[in-house]
Amino acid sequence: MGIKYFVTGAAGFIGSHLVDSLLSEGREVVGFDNFSTGYEAFLESARQQPTFRLVRGDVSDPGALTQAMKGCQVVFHLAGNDNMRLGLSQPRFDLEQNTLGTFNVLEAMRATGAKTILFTSTGNVYGETPMTPTPEDCPLSPQTSLYAASKLASEALIEAYCAGFGIEGYIFRLVSVLGERYTHGHVMEFYRGLLQDDSKLKVLGDGHQRKSYLNVHDCVAAMHYILELETARQARNRVEIYNLGTTEYCEINDSIRWISGFLGLTPQLEYVGGPHGWIGDNPFLYLDVSKALKTGWKPDRNIQESIRQTVTWICDNEWVAEKNKC
Amino acid sequence: MGIKYFVTGAAGFIGSHLVDSLLSEGREVVGFDNFSTGYEAFLESARQQPTFRLVRGDVSDPGALTQAMKGCQVVFHLAGNDNMRLGLSQPRFDLEQNTLGTFNVLEAMRATGAKTILFTSTGNVYGETPMTPTPEDCPLSPQTSLYAASKLASEALIEAYCAGFGIEGYIFRLVSVLGERYTHGHVMEFYRGLLQDDSKLKVLGDGHQRKSYLNVHDCVAAMHYILELETARQARNRVEIYNLGTTEYCEINDSIRWISGFLGLTPQLEYVGGPHGWIGDNPFLYLDVSKALKTGWKPDRNIQESIRQTVTWICDNEWVAEKNKC
Repeated sequence: MGIKYFVTGAAGFIGSHLVDSLLSEGREVVGFDNFSTGYEAFLESARQQPTFRLVRGDVSDPGALTQAMKGCQVVFHLAGNDNMRLGLSQPRFDLEQNTLGTFNVLEAMRATGAKTILFTSTGNVYGETPMTPTPEDCPLSPQTSLYAASKLASEALIEAYCAGFGIEGYIFRLVSVLGERYTHGHVMEFYRGLLQDDSKLKVLGDGHQRKSYLNVHDCVAAMHYILELETARQARNRVEIYNLGTTEYCEINDSIRWISGFLGLTPQLEYVGGPHGWIGDNPFLYLDVSKALKTGWKPDRNIQESIRQTVTWICDNEWVAEKNKC
Repeated sequence: MGIKYFVTGAAGFIGSHLVDSLLSEGREVVGFDNFSTGYEAFLESARQQPTFRLVRGDVSDPGALTQAMKGCQVVFHLAGNDNMRLGLSQPRFDLEQNTLGTFNVLEAMRATGAKTILFTSTGNVYGETPMTPTPEDCPLSPQTSLYAASKLASEALIEAYCAGFGIEGYIFRLVSVLGERYTHGHVMEFYRGLLQDDSKLKVLGDGHQRKSYLNVHDCVAAMHYILELETARQARNRVEIYNLGTTEYCEINDSIRWISGFLGLTPQLEYVGGPHGWIGDNPFLYLDVSKALKTGWKPDRNIQESIRQTVTWICDNEWVAEKNKC
């Protein structure tokens, strides 16, 4: 019997691509999602595969998780809140969806005997570090959002479970991800803004925030690549952290120029706030991905291409923007 | 009206000394404790002071916390599990007592308007770092215990609340603490073992684990010192981490020799396990305390003196060991 994979957040942006990728290689996959931010449509192709099983459930429900995970060996834990800005209005949300959700996943692994976890964390755990590009062994600066704090707490739990319960863990610290099935983030916000009024655009921050964006296909390829490489070692108690991002960054202003260009618009820009777009926004997030590159993986799409792909996808799938035709 | 102080874990080892110290300076103090590991006897002197009020309550109860905290400006958050070894048998315990407890304290601060938090974390958050003595800005190695993971999660929450809600936070990463009112840890275990049979002693680990121990009076003095210095700046959103420990370390074998010597015993030693006493035990925990020393604070008692004081106190308060007379 082959290895069976369990994917939380299977109907989400990254999760659904990961599911497709695993299925395309003939793997057996159990997808788990509460459909709070995931979409049925993203699993349309997956659900036609006999090696795929979908379970509707929430990571806050330990019984449902344990039941669904039975017989799986490898767990990709992608479920959780990834809207950074919710923290200030709903401080409990990241704690429950991310920290406690990860705890429940780890407890389900203990109960079912699943031995490998791969987890999507965030490059925001580095805080506003002066060290850019930021390597994995960079000292952490203070957390600036409840979102990043909950991801760091999840990482810590995974590490402690690896040490204490003989599992192995791979933690991916991600930059923001772009591409097909993109559902929220700055591109969506700009797009929505321009749909409402294409003559002007409100920009949170001074436009000079520098960000590195990874294409979702490159992101999933990296997870796959690292899984194969790492699990070949069959190491128990092992935990490894990998930054995942591109080797370049752009300014928010670049991104706006590209988005507007693709849409054939020339909006007037209105900047609000200072160097930070909002509390918790990191003015310069750029990760050193040397460790991931050393595995042989490399990202194929640059940021401009990813932004074009994202805008094109939103235009073709306007139901995601819950707005009228562009 | 002067500043009112709130102390969680007020009836505990460090908490009760902190309460006494604040009261001795005429401060107004509300002590909060669930008496799960704290003792009434430790607050005997405090309860005779008119400026002290004791509230029985648990940090897992947000309503009780918020009610008790009303009118307080400065919160010392010391409550929580500090028995590192419980994690493997009760993985939920550290999460609930430490991570969720800290979240509840922070939410109570938001609700009541308390603006300053001082938190006792642990030097174990550094993991098994190769950098010793370990400075505050050392990159974190993987967490090896659910205890340390829960403290790191608490630190992250405090940092995010400082950034998001305008409070200020001071995080103390402690080595193990010794002195009067000591209730558990290696000295207590050795003492209990020798009470049962003074001809032999079982030692977890190879005896060469190197540890730095801080006297409880020095610990409380540091917290006081740093509070005064830092809050004079009246900085909002500020968060600072301070290592608290001594400038020396000893081997567990040294500690055994001193304890046996004070008790006039020469037990046969039986070492079990390898370099780690247990999963999560750090074979070399020694913190760089330069940052704390720069404030003008310095520890007055060396490790040998602290161990003697601890053994003497246990002998004089044998009810704590729940054993017969030594």
